[in-house]
Amino acid sequence: MTARDALMHLAGTGSALPGEPVDNEALSGFFGISGDWIDLFVGTRTRHFGWDPATGKITHTLADLCAESAARALAAAGLAAADLDFLVLSTATPDTLLPTTAGETADRLGLNHLPVYQVQAGCSGAVQALDLARALLAGGHQAGLVVGGDVTARFLRAGQDASDLATQELVNYVLFGDGAAAAVVTAEPHDARAVAVRGLLHRFAGLGRPPGQIVGWRGLAEPEPDRQMLFEDYKTIEEDVPALAGEIVWELLSTAGWTERQVDFVLPPQLSGHMTDRIVAGLGLPPGCREVSCVRDTGNTGNALPLLQLHRLLARLAPGERALSVVVESSKWIKAGLALERPTGEGGQAR
Amino acid sequence: MTARDALMHLAGTGSALPGEPVDNEALSGFFGISGDWIDLFVGTRTRHFGWDPATGKITHTLADLCAESAARALAAAGLAAADLDFLVLSTATPDTLLPTTAGETADRLGLNHLPVYQVQAGCSGAVQALDLARALLAGGHQAGLVVGGDVTARFLRAGQDASDLATQELVNYVLFGDGAAAAVVTAEPHDARAVAVRGLLHRFAGLGRPPGQIVGWRGLAEPEPDRQMLFEDYKTIEEDVPALAGEIVWELLSTAGWTERQVDFVLPPQLSGHMTDRIVAGLGLPPGCREVSCVRDTGNTGNALPLLQLHRLLARLAPGERALSVVVESSKWIKAGLALERPTGEGGQAR
Repeated sequence: MTARDALMHLAGTGSALPGEPVDNEALSGFFGISGDWIDLFVGTRTRHFGWDPATGKITHTLADLCAESAARALAAAGLAAADLDFLVLSTATPDTLLPTTAGETADRLGLNHLPVYQVQAGCSGAVQALDLARALLAGGHQAGLVVGGDVTARFLRAGQDASDLATQELVNYVLFGDGAAAAVVTAEPHDARAVAVRGLLHRFAGLGRPPGQIVGWRGLAEPEPDRQMLFEDYKTIEEDVPALAGEIVWELLSTAGWTERQVDFVLPPQLSGHMTDRIVAGLGLPPGCREVSCVRDTGNTGNALPLLQLHRLLARLAPGERALSVVVESSKWIKAGLALERPTGEGGQAR
Repeated sequence: MTARDALMHLAGTGSALPGEPVDNEALSGFFGISGDWIDLFVGTRTRHFGWDPATGKITHTLADLCAESAARALAAAGLAAADLDFLVLSTATPDTLLPTTAGETADRLGLNHLPVYQVQAGCSGAVQALDLARALLAGGHQAGLVVGGDVTARFLRAGQDASDLATQELVNYVLFGDGAAAAVVTAEPHDARAVAVRGLLHRFAGLGRPPGQIVGWRGLAEPEPDRQMLFEDYKTIEEDVPALAGEIVWELLSTAGWTERQVDFVLPPQLSGHMTDRIVAGLGLPPGCREVSCVRDTGNTGNALPLLQLHRLLARLAPGERALSVVVESSKWIKAGLALERPTGEGGQAR
């Protein structure tokens, strides 16, 4: 397989996690949730918040985090803003409905006179943005920026005693974290060892299936006061995500023309530390296949998460090595993922 | 120019406007706004609401309208859901943040196992969605569905006496309406006279410019109670949109290789009836160039509007005729538009 077979190349990645990590003991102090319970049932150790859990004051907006991670990705790629042909940003929690956080991020990066898109999505948003980047590169663009991020400030209440809450609402306080991450993608490899995207899966699979996750919003008027604002069907998620993850692995292997023995790293779905363990165990990948996860340190950061994993992968992926990123969005059920490879060098064959 | 020069082709369009039109007299009754004032200063005669202005009860969700307009576009194209390779939906006002209205719309149309994208945007969203559709078609897909829509229920209050409101807030009651519209796009023309998209402009122009429009949202917590929920900088919009519209016309003509004398129809920005008149007057297009507008009947329907104009255009555009769609998004300043042509027939030259 040569560079020409790649859908696109990763020129650089960057991440932005606000403030200091908040551990389970600190979280317990803020919201009255047992730290031991979090360790036992969730398996997430720390997360970051772009707001002060004591006062609720916002310290980092989504645009702050997106611009910071994007600037780092550009620096890692050795590119300037002027080298970019487009920006695609994905999020479930934009700072405002209008203007888009994508437009605000473009402004902060000094971008102008280029197409800027914002994708509304959950966990699969980063792969959706990469999917659109691939199409834009195929259409003649040379380089683009993909950013994903989410923030929790408008769904978690400072000073809330979460021990009063139903489990369904309580889990939001222990599962999620704030962050953004970015990747610069190019049509041609910026150097001989730039990581190549060999396969990309993005497929709606929600026909006739009730949503596994609902996130509502309110405006000035409230025509539906009983509207569901946050809902996670954890039972269905626990049951269905492992099977969907398995299907994604096999679809990606088939697209890339690889066998499971040729996969060196897996980037699994990151709902929580413990659920990630169960999913990985069920994938049946060979024992030598290493896991790249961040959920135990960052919590579930939504649209940032697959790019955070990618950022960590790039530091570890050696020439000739291959990785699968496996992403399931439970909102209305989307299968997504990436097949990635670092070439051995100019004209080299990976295996 | 032959079919091969087209970026994509329009196979069919459809629209969905909820309920009966609400005229200025009725609006005056609901919200205490002088109908004469609306006639004089706004120039919008009717609009549709997917909610009852007397009670606030929602009668049509955004997904209802999107699915209805999409089904009509499919029927007009003579295609079935199974013929589609992707769905791109744009809106500023999704029913929920998650799942996306795009996913809900896909479900209602019976779509599955295809990529489904939702673009967050204002007035330029429909062109952004068409821009992404063009890239997806260039990447090998054959047919896709583009849908745009917006709803007002969460920003207008039933029973509000709008005469108490500052003009800045009052205008929301007289400018906006609910609706959705859709287009089926194909890589190859589905018949010899399918309207061809010859040029497409989508360019962020917001560097260093304050937003002209802000639409906020709230979740469960309210970390920023003073957050601006709705803001329109009408003075700047009135000043800047006509000039931007002129730039868009010239960029589209240059891309398509046309002169202004070769343009038979213009689809101008649709902020209000009166502002549309002023913009068209300033474009300097030849007297024979006809206007395709809907804002006087539908109000400003946001992401639906350029597709509503397209739907009306298709009924009028004769073989060999050309049209320019001119779209300005003032949220963070985006220039957008389309150059459209109905071919004269198999192998024919338009002029």
